[in-house]
Amino acid sequence: LNPVTDAARVIADLRELDRRTGGSNGAQRLCWGEGWQIAREFLRELLAELSIEPDLDPAGNLWATLEGDSAPGLVLGSHLDSVPNGGWLDGALGVFAGLGVLRAWKEAGTVPPRNLTLVDWADEEGARFGRSLFGSSAFSGSLRTTEIEALVDADGATPGRILAANGVDLDAVGGATEKQPAVGAYLELHIEQGPVLEAIGQSVAAVDGCVGVRRWRFLFVGQPAHAGTTPMDHRRDPGLAAAALALSVEEIANTLGGRGTTGSLRVSPCLATAIPESAELIVDLRHGQLASLEQMLERVQARASALADERGCALEMDPIWAIDPIDFDATLVATAARACRELCDSELVVRSGALHDAAEVARVAPAAMLFSPSRRGLSHTREEDTAEADLLIAVTALAVTANAVLDGWGGIPLRSPGSGS
Amino acid sequence: LNPVTDAARVIADLRELDRRTGGSNGAQRLCWGEGWQIAREFLRELLAELSIEPDLDPAGNLWATLEGDSAPGLVLGSHLDSVPNGGWLDGALGVFAGLGVLRAWKEAGTVPPRNLTLVDWADEEGARFGRSLFGSSAFSGSLRTTEIEALVDADGATPGRILAANGVDLDAVGGATEKQPAVGAYLELHIEQGPVLEAIGQSVAAVDGCVGVRRWRFLFVGQPAHAGTTPMDHRRDPGLAAAALALSVEEIANTLGGRGTTGSLRVSPCLATAIPESAELIVDLRHGQLASLEQMLERVQARASALADERGCALEMDPIWAIDPIDFDATLVATAARACRELCDSELVVRSGALHDAAEVARVAPAAMLFSPSRRGLSHTREEDTAEADLLIAVTALAVTANAVLDGWGGIPLRSPGSGS
Repeated sequence: LNPVTDAARVIADLRELDRRTGGSNGAQRLCWGEGWQIAREFLRELLAELSIEPDLDPAGNLWATLEGDSAPGLVLGSHLDSVPNGGWLDGALGVFAGLGVLRAWKEAGTVPPRNLTLVDWADEEGARFGRSLFGSSAFSGSLRTTEIEALVDADGATPGRILAANGVDLDAVGGATEKQPAVGAYLELHIEQGPVLEAIGQSVAAVDGCVGVRRWRFLFVGQPAHAGTTPMDHRRDPGLAAAALALSVEEIANTLGGRGTTGSLRVSPCLATAIPESAELIVDLRHGQLASLEQMLERVQARASALADERGCALEMDPIWAIDPIDFDATLVATAARACRELCDSELVVRSGALHDAAEVARVAPAAMLFSPSRRGLSHTREEDTAEADLLIAVTALAVTANAVLDGWGGIPLRSPGSGS
Repeated sequence: LNPVTDAARVIADLRELDRRTGGSNGAQRLCWGEGWQIAREFLRELLAELSIEPDLDPAGNLWATLEGDSAPGLVLGSHLDSVPNGGWLDGALGVFAGLGVLRAWKEAGTVPPRNLTLVDWADEEGARFGRSLFGSSAFSGSLRTTEIEALVDADGATPGRILAANGVDLDAVGGATEKQPAVGAYLELHIEQGPVLEAIGQSVAAVDGCVGVRRWRFLFVGQPAHAGTTPMDHRRDPGLAAAALALSVEEIANTLGGRGTTGSLRVSPCLATAIPESAELIVDLRHGQLASLEQMLERVQARASALADERGCALEMDPIWAIDPIDFDATLVATAARACRELCDSELVVRSGALHDAAEVARVAPAAMLFSPSRRGLSHTREEDTAEADLLIAVTALAVTANAVLDGWGGIPLRSPGSGS
């Protein structure tokens, strides 16, 4: 019989973390800053109780391993950093739940059949420099440090300086790939950050991958003109072209079963008494299937061109960011889903609409995730919360999944040493 | 035979003004500032050549009278101030064309049958403190100085301080109404600032009034949420409500024959990866007929409410500014239209979509306007221009109209002294 994780103690740890790094405005664990350092110090305290000494890889990711009978091992993790004024669970839940699994094995005095490792990824949120998944993409090898060298934070500080103050050399970050051979499989528990589980009444769900994203900028340029003196049929209004495109994005997302968002819309100049000269709309498209994602983008581009023609506007279209859908390991997902069924009445497998460190890990090792519900779907705010009953079930589901993987239940294709990509 | 105005000399004066106060970025005659003071100094030089000594009223409007045989007189005018980086003709055309009429009578040595007065209204543009028609509304009595006391310019200076530096006491501005009895009739030549005359090929047109305006603010408040994790059918997106309202404003303006503009649209926060919390749309509605203007507003309000309901958003609606349509004096308009027909092949009477000093004068005295075409409809930019052939005709049309009024041609109901409202 495998050791049983004390989920209530995990929640107590999370509340203590919140006491140390939260407040009336929410969690303050901006990566590389004081609150985040306090959070890591707390994690080190708890690891010390288990006589585990963590180490940092060249990207600042924290790794803590309970030695097992063989390698590579099972890695559990998430991230301690938060956005400014963030929620108490985002990221921290997965780190402390993983710690709970290590603690159960350690305190039971049982040596796990494989190494059992906790990882706290550095700078998942990207809230400081605008590049999310920093640590996990350094690990997977997809990070190009040249992308971030020129960035600055709100105080004008560069990543090079801030990382150096945290013992990380920006030029050496690529060395984080050295950890790949140690990762036989990866599991991450995270809050959903959306409303679906709550609406269904599901306490925990398995996650089979992350949607792909196409994020494009559409700039319509028209003719600035006076609101009073310009007849309606003489206008070339780029603001109305952008407004119509925003509505079309919604329609296209609905038709193709994806998600389309137009949260960034700027008209210039922004004056009540003038037709603007230009309007910039950023379109964020997401879909679980690559073909449908590409179809969404094609339809949005065609519609943008038609609207520009219709309204006599020039149009620029530029890609901002793109990532293809990422599928998690089918066997790990099935194992997680089975754990959910054991603990809930029903089994639910969802696709994540947000990106997570697990998506980076999945590039180089078998990975899967579990989601707990988010009250009202809220995240990145102090209002972020999950019912305690759901948290207990979700933490337990991670432990049950982890133990099943360690037992080889379901035949997880754990990687052999040296098979890293 | 009445004296003939030298329109070419008027254009030469305008070019000299542009040399003194313009530049590669356009006209720099922001009211109360150095460029504007230079413009007025130039006007004083030209008046001195005619041995006319101007005087300032308590609002800083400049009045210059060529004495005639009776009073009240005919007043010609417009404004020398410009927006920053403005055009060379906006306002200045009407002032120097008026001066040209005075000069013709003076140089012919003929005493006009009535006083002939030039007025340069102070701060028509409102580009400094945001209150347009300052001088003319002080004259008409519609200005409330309390509206502007709390305003500041881009440098943080108050109207009180800036006006005092120009010899104007803000507390005494209301005294400008003392000039009303001197105004028997008022004529103003201005550029159209729109594309209609150019499109028709009309060198000058009579203007029968100004449209009314209803300017309202619509604030939709929805639910901020994550672009990736929030299913389309869980969204309460205020940005899409505002986008749909903007398109409806266009449709309503087209249906009712008015103008509807939505040049100010702000979403907050403005992020590619989030549904915004709120979206503010300012709607500017204009129509020549009061009943239609009010119908436009009612339809826009009803549509805004329906959109808020449809998208689960809260809605605030607030009036920002309103003015009813203003009709110019029918006899003066007919006289101006007749002058246009004399000089062009055709007669055109239009309604101004922008407000002008003449709209304020019309509250207390018979008034009318003439428009010259604007190339590509552009104004408030250094690109503002009018073909020289059109300018010559337009200046001449003002002179012909003025002389017809002085002759009593068309039976203009010139006001008796003391009949001012």
